[in-house]
Amino acid sequence: MKDLKLTALADRGKTIVKTGKVEIGKGLVIIAGPCSVENERQLMETTQKVKEAGADILRGGVFKPRTSPYAFQGLGLKGLKLLEKAGREFDMPVVTEVLDTRDVSWVCEYVDMLQIGARNMQNFSLLKEAGKANKPVLLKRGMHSTLHEWLNCAEYILHEGNPDVVLCERGIRTFETYTRNTLDLSAIPSCQELTHLPVLVDPSHGTGRKSLIEPMCLASAAAGADGIVVEVHIRPEEALSDKEQSLTPGEFAAIVKKVRRLQEFL
Amino acid sequence: MKDLKLTALADRGKTIVKTGKVEIGKGLVIIAGPCSVENERQLMETTQKVKEAGADILRGGVFKPRTSPYAFQGLGLKGLKLLEKAGREFDMPVVTEVLDTRDVSWVCEYVDMLQIGARNMQNFSLLKEAGKANKPVLLKRGMHSTLHEWLNCAEYILHEGNPDVVLCERGIRTFETYTRNTLDLSAIPSCQELTHLPVLVDPSHGTGRKSLIEPMCLASAAAGADGIVVEVHIRPEEALSDKEQSLTPGEFAAIVKKVRRLQEFL
Amino acid sequence: MKDLKLTALADRGKTIVKTGKVEIGKGLVIIAGPCSVENERQLMETTQKVKEAGADILRGGVFKPRTSPYAFQGLGLKGLKLLEKAGREFDMPVVTEVLDTRDVSWVCEYVDMLQIGARNMQNFSLLKEAGKANKPVLLKRGMHSTLHEWLNCAEYILHEGNPDVVLCERGIRTFETYTRNTLDLSAIPSCQELTHLPVLVDPSHGTGRKSLIEPMCLASAAAGADGIVVEVHIRPEEALSDKEQSLTPGEFAAIVKKVRRLQEFL
Amino acid sequence: MKDLKLTALADRGKTIVKTGKVEIGKGLVIIAGPCSVENERQLMETTQKVKEAGADILRGGVFKPRTSPYAFQGLGLKGLKLLEKAGREFDMPVVTEVLDTRDVSWVCEYVDMLQIGARNMQNFSLLKEAGKANKPVLLKRGMHSTLHEWLNCAEYILHEGNPDVVLCERGIRTFETYTRNTLDLSAIPSCQELTHLPVLVDPSHGTGRKSLIEPMCLASAAAGADGIVVEVHIRPEEALSDKEQSLTPGEFAAIVKKVRRLQEFL
Repeated sequence: MKDLKLTALADRGKTIVKTGKVEIGKGLVIIAGPCSVENERQLMETTQKVKEAGADILRGGVFKPRTSPYAFQGLGLKGLKLLEKAGREFDMPVVTEVLDTRDVSWVCEYVDMLQIGARNMQNFSLLKEAGKANKPVLLKRGMHSTLHEWLNCAEYILHEGNPDVVLCERGIRTFETYTRNTLDLSAIPSCQELTHLPVLVDPSHGTGRKSLIEPMCLASAAAGADGIVVEVHIRPEEALSDKEQSLTPGEFAAIVKKVRRLQEFL
Repeated sequence: MKDLKLTALADRGKTIVKTGKVEIGKGLVIIAGPCSVENERQLMETTQKVKEAGADILRGGVFKPRTSPYAFQGLGLKGLKLLEKAGREFDMPVVTEVLDTRDVSWVCEYVDMLQIGARNMQNFSLLKEAGKANKPVLLKRGMHSTLHEWLNCAEYILHEGNPDVVLCERGIRTFETYTRNTLDLSAIPSCQELTHLPVLVDPSHGTGRKSLIEPMCLASAAAGADGIVVEVHIRPEEALSDKEQSLTPGEFAAIVKKVRRLQEFL
Repeated sequence: MKDLKLTALADRGKTIVKTGKVEIGKGLVIIAGPCSVENERQLMETTQKVKEAGADILRGGVFKPRTSPYAFQGLGLKGLKLLEKAGREFDMPVVTEVLDTRDVSWVCEYVDMLQIGARNMQNFSLLKEAGKANKPVLLKRGMHSTLHEWLNCAEYILHEGNPDVVLCERGIRTFETYTRNTLDLSAIPSCQELTHLPVLVDPSHGTGRKSLIEPMCLASAAAGADGIVVEVHIRPEEALSDKEQSLTPGEFAAIVKKVRRLQEFL
Repeated sequence: MKDLKLTALADRGKTIVKTGKVEIGKGLVIIAGPCSVENERQLMETTQKVKEAGADILRGGVFKPRTSPYAFQGLGLKGLKLLEKAGREFDMPVVTEVLDTRDVSWVCEYVDMLQIGARNMQNFSLLKEAGKANKPVLLKRGMHSTLHEWLNCAEYILHEGNPDVVLCERGIRTFETYTRNTLDLSAIPSCQELTHLPVLVDPSHGTGRKSLIEPMCLASAAAGADGIVVEVHIRPEEALSDKEQSLTPGEFAAIVKKVRRLQEFL
């Protein structure tokens, strides 16, 4: 990985990314929230529950990258305003995905952290725009991406002057069909030895199966992840997207409890 | 593939996409040119040679999606002007890749056809913007993409009102390392039975090895492809990108001859 | 591929493998027959039809490597005797798959060529045993196998003293689900530049879809394959295995006709 | 997975597999030893060290499935006798891989447990022979294998009457090149919800990188694995196989300590 200039400086000391009062890179950060922001009640109730359960950062999609143009595409600006409100009311930093270079600057007005999703990992225009933003960037691994390519995408952001990049493993595409993707937990220590950036894990997208989320959260923590990202919905069976992998607030609370206990051990 | 509404209408009769005087979907169309537009001399000489050899459409990149931010990123507007000039001088339609939603409308001023590359196949904002453009769109298959996902991306463009979509298989990512990607030629008849859109093949990116381009061009033609896309450089050893897979004009001319002969047989 | 000593000698002149009166490595050899030998009538009728259509070699499985232990496992010795009879009656060499080191020597009494299947490609004991046999070996590529690994398996056979190895591409495992496997036709010219052994293609297993077999046969021929292997059943809908991909004798005859015409062109 | 009859009975209560005094399926079992048995001194010293460090079962290869026929192929019978001696001297059950149906019965005279390796996972003849043996079988996942196929291979063994099957995840083949394979830790809870068999993890083969073994051992334990399998060599730099991934006894002892502490927490 000789072509990496900034990210590869693993020996320069670990990067701590601050968003609101949360420091990513110290301890284990928990990001939770619905796949999509659907309406005020859904978001407010979910936020309250994940906050009570111990989540540090609120996540929620307002521009949804959907396989089909006929699937729910997200609430857009209306959703952003709801996210901002929820974040303020429950005192949580908010992260949301951006899909379009034209949206980066104004979305920054509403949220604390930008996410670049797996499908846009090599959308180099978007990476450059995020590199000019004054907000931290959560960079998901593309489902087809090698570590080398992923770290080069982080490099695009760093190269534009934004030092606050957080990596997030979310499963790669393989031949296995039992799970939605194959969660590559070896990416955690691999990225930590190759780079100074924090590394999170998203077992919701990484497995696509509710029953696997708890063991994968515990495994991520044990492998040294700097945080986990999970989808929680007040009523998963009514979710407009990703209903198979969304946890109820109760299930989420049980996982947080176990993860926090494990964290003390480590 | 029940979620496809427009593309799946394979029985509505094959779509013929016109660009300049060229009709894609009738016979076998040959698209050729350099990976990147590097300077006027390189482009003009290459265009003259590929035209003489029998190419129908000129290709050339001006915004280059490179793994590393430190690699050559393309000439941008300057390159577009050169492409436009070359296209006029040699009477060939021109296709170039766009990477950014903000570029779609003005790039259309200079070229005859837009390309959406493998890394942006699921850049849904870009697909929607291309769907509003008044130029045909060459949609490459993502290296991680199933046929189902690819056709849904075509659907995004069609859904916005642009009927002129051309599919292009360019290899998928597998574990094999001898070739750069694994060219999936079964995608040709598969897409033709699932959709009414023309299907091209790019064996340059699909294999990444010069020696494999000729047999893969012949195989593509025999499998029923509507065209092929190949990289040609006046001096491949000096190319700023993709030098291992660029053909010399002489090598290209030899391939065109064989492909044209095979075409008569079919 | 520096570790290859025998197979890598691509410059030593192409190997021609003789089985009966058929020479594999000259022109295009067509191997056809049922997935499994089921009973005398099925085999005799199918053999007659594929012979009439122009097949050179008869294939048929008597030991079936099935995913589940509860699926049809093949007729064993009884099937071998039927194969031998069919081969004699219709004057065709016969090839069948062996699964067990203990079977190699006695199976050689009944057939003209041994097949080592994809699942046993790295069954090194079986490779060594086949290397001691006095019959040619058709070595299928493992569905997870790189070219490098595959050629090393050929090397195991050659190393034991058997020079008559024929390679057969049969699709690799990828994330695509529309086809059963992804047929890697670039393996044809790749193996031909790396080794002196003949290379066949099996589009039946390689695609798993009837409608794709004809275009993939033509593409294989155009790419320079030394032969094709296809499954034919007198009544595909009643086949005990692989019914989705078995051709009727009529479909097979139509393909042979086109492939033979294409062959003249090449 | 409706075709599974025996293994799928996840509700019949977990299978505990006894080998010597060790019970696999209760707590976390640690299997360690050299990739290959090389000579008496290497094996005895390594066994002493892994025993002292807390390993439960000794592993060591005597028939080595090597990509190239020119690589070290193992000591065979001589190695088995050394394994038997080491097992007795240090009071540890011994597991070794078998490659050939003809070896199963006599190898059982020397060892306590048979291993079927990744490359032979679908060697159905070998599975059937192992199903007739009176020793437990450690069944590794094929590098190309879905969970469905893997469990069907376990079914082959169970179906022949041997109830003592232990599954072992060892990484699947993907496009990633930083690691040798991609370790699929979601296979642990997945197999535990689909079957009653114990599930181990082999991070040595699963990652191929020393530095990743400790975090992957901890992650496996946290995800609920019934055990781990690691390669240890008295002098890794002199190992005849797998030197990049073999731990020193000291490194192994440090991992055991952490894993045992984590185990108490869980």
